[in-house]
Amino acid sequence: MVSQRMLQLGTARSVIRELFEYGRQRAAEVGAENVFDFSLGNPSVPAPAEVNDTAIRLLREQADTIHCYTSAPGDPAARQRIADSLNRRFGEQYTADELYLTVGAAASLCCVLGGLTCPGDEYILFAPYFPEYRVFIEGVKGKVKVIPPEPEHFQIDFSAFEQAVTCRTKGVIINSPNNPSGVVYSRQTLETLAAILRAKEALYGHPIYLISDEPYREIAFHGVEVPWVPQIYKDTIVCYSFSKSLSLPGERLGYVLVPKQVTDADSVYAAAAGAGRSQGYVNAPSLFQRVAAECCDLTADISVYERNCALLTDALREMGYHVVQPGGAFYLFPRSLEPDDMAFSERAKQFDLLLVPGSGFGAPGHFRIAYCVQTEMIERALPRFKALADSYQ
Amino acid sequence: MVSQRMLQLGTARSVIRELFEYGRQRAAEVGAENVFDFSLGNPSVPAPAEVNDTAIRLLREQADTIHCYTSAPGDPAARQRIADSLNRRFGEQYTADELYLTVGAAASLCCVLGGLTCPGDEYILFAPYFPEYRVFIEGVKGKVKVIPPEPEHFQIDFSAFEQAVTCRTKGVIINSPNNPSGVVYSRQTLETLAAILRAKEALYGHPIYLISDEPYREIAFHGVEVPWVPQIYKDTIVCYSFSKSLSLPGERLGYVLVPKQVTDADSVYAAAAGAGRSQGYVNAPSLFQRVAAECCDLTADISVYERNCALLTDALREMGYHVVQPGGAFYLFPRSLEPDDMAFSERAKQFDLLLVPGSGFGAPGHFRIAYCVQTEMIERALPRFKALADSYQ
Repeated sequence: MVSQRMLQLGTARSVIRELFEYGRQRAAEVGAENVFDFSLGNPSVPAPAEVNDTAIRLLREQADTIHCYTSAPGDPAARQRIADSLNRRFGEQYTADELYLTVGAAASLCCVLGGLTCPGDEYILFAPYFPEYRVFIEGVKGKVKVIPPEPEHFQIDFSAFEQAVTCRTKGVIINSPNNPSGVVYSRQTLETLAAILRAKEALYGHPIYLISDEPYREIAFHGVEVPWVPQIYKDTIVCYSFSKSLSLPGERLGYVLVPKQVTDADSVYAAAAGAGRSQGYVNAPSLFQRVAAECCDLTADISVYERNCALLTDALREMGYHVVQPGGAFYLFPRSLEPDDMAFSERAKQFDLLLVPGSGFGAPGHFRIAYCVQTEMIERALPRFKALADSYQ
Repeated sequence: MVSQRMLQLGTARSVIRELFEYGRQRAAEVGAENVFDFSLGNPSVPAPAEVNDTAIRLLREQADTIHCYTSAPGDPAARQRIADSLNRRFGEQYTADELYLTVGAAASLCCVLGGLTCPGDEYILFAPYFPEYRVFIEGVKGKVKVIPPEPEHFQIDFSAFEQAVTCRTKGVIINSPNNPSGVVYSRQTLETLAAILRAKEALYGHPIYLISDEPYREIAFHGVEVPWVPQIYKDTIVCYSFSKSLSLPGERLGYVLVPKQVTDADSVYAAAAGAGRSQGYVNAPSLFQRVAAECCDLTADISVYERNCALLTDALREMGYHVVQPGGAFYLFPRSLEPDDMAFSERAKQFDLLLVPGSGFGAPGHFRIAYCVQTEMIERALPRFKALADSYQ
């Protein structure tokens, strides 16, 4: 009697959630310090002190107005402040009108996909990919096409991509720095991608939008370049969240940027706003609109992630794991030590290591480590990873 | 190239928004003090001081954890606290598991409608109704049936309702205290409604859900009873928001309550959660989950609304306006002084009165006054209402 598709979405526990629940039970048995939970992407570093200071100041100084409705796309001053930050960093001239503040990156994607999608439209994802993309695309009745992983570097298999683009392709979603691989797309990768997309746009006579989902943009290591995608491909729509850069995942604050250069930019922006309205998004949370705008040039202490990344990557490689070099985010995506990544994840539990199988990300034969955890937990976990590897000798 | 339906939703300015923009322009010409804007339902009283105090305390005491993801239905302790408050007030035994915290009442409705709706499902609305209901229902491909107003008391025209219910009726939405009429459904009205729904459930052999949208529940005047709907009709799903009771409309915090007594309660709850997931709702904003839970027994100073209501109702009646007696919320919905409410609203502009035509609420021949404004503005506006009435002599 209810929507069976929604019932299934609401009851199907994700593998990640299963692991998390298992970890809680197991912790009750053997002690939390003996369970090594690498399943969740919850930032382990707190928000910068300025975030809470700003929130407290606004609650005091604007007590009577800070909780009012804002306009649907967000407070104009907050949007301009975020635009100014992008302009300083990337040499652009964005204005408030090109930004639409949202209840986080998931909402950003749902608004954009809802606004763009007409019956029959297809979207292309590159494995490994964040599994909720499929939920969001299918939620607006779009069709998903997945390009298999390029397993040496987790860049893009362009010949598979070229074959997958059709006249029905409405958009392509990229996510760099990537969840789950931690890889950053190189400028070369993005330029090749853009060249193919431009040729396909010309061939089919309609725009193909590149949806750049960038919640990890600020988390990039040892100076690796994270190119500003709109400067490489004109028809780029940026979906952002402050969840990771400011360690505010629970507050739900992000944006959609539809640069004026985008084909039919005004329609795309308005349709995304219409989709937000249809989905019940009235405005992004009003206090944190202003907090994020005032703090958008800051980041949480992401040096912790860089340290964790180096520690794990070096140690795992020494033990014989194959790890593609990550450039950012807070994930590693090594090969599992047997082809069946579900069986591998099960075996890892025997060592109280909670590792997410790669199949859910469209990349069987791998597993994800979310290393947004305390460094000392990683140090204590290394012997477990070693024992797990030894068990395959 | 974009979704035409979403483009239309994103570009079609609502009449309310048109009026609001007109008011801003007009204020620039004649001074803000000379424009009497009764168009917007933005609470005019600030949040209780405890709300900001609680937020500041949580930001200080839980600086490292308050911004983390919560579970998708919301922090269990916050949900239990809200359940406890309902239990104290209504003698129920709700638990955290029956509550799903949302990004406001609009999101609550979108989650419930998305979860319930199967192809061909119909929903019944009673005019006058909040216009976004239609957007939300059609957004999940449901069909809307509107019952014309019962213009003497804005209760329910039951014979029209009985004829409208079919085997395709999935649900009925009520909103009491009502936007735009300010009317509270009497116990008698709700009992008759429930009796009809029970008979129709028996006739068709499936549940018909009563979706009770209650953002104004706490704003009821001179002791008028706002019955607790789940005690009158078993298959009631409550959609709530703290926007009005705590004057927090911009923060987006509400809930869905699916009491265990509801037919297929577990499936309804899970499907609503699945719809939320599909629409990109990850969790309700984490700080304000806790703030609302700690402050859920408080209200903003709603005595202002009661004073405004009495002032306006008495004065307008004396001038010859027909005003159905309201019981709460912060709206009046008098008859327009000519049958064409759009023409009436236009004429009111000549007196710098911004009044929303009733047609958008499914009740032509009426107009809405949102009196969540300063009392002194109402006092200064009364001569304008008088002059407007005189112009029809």
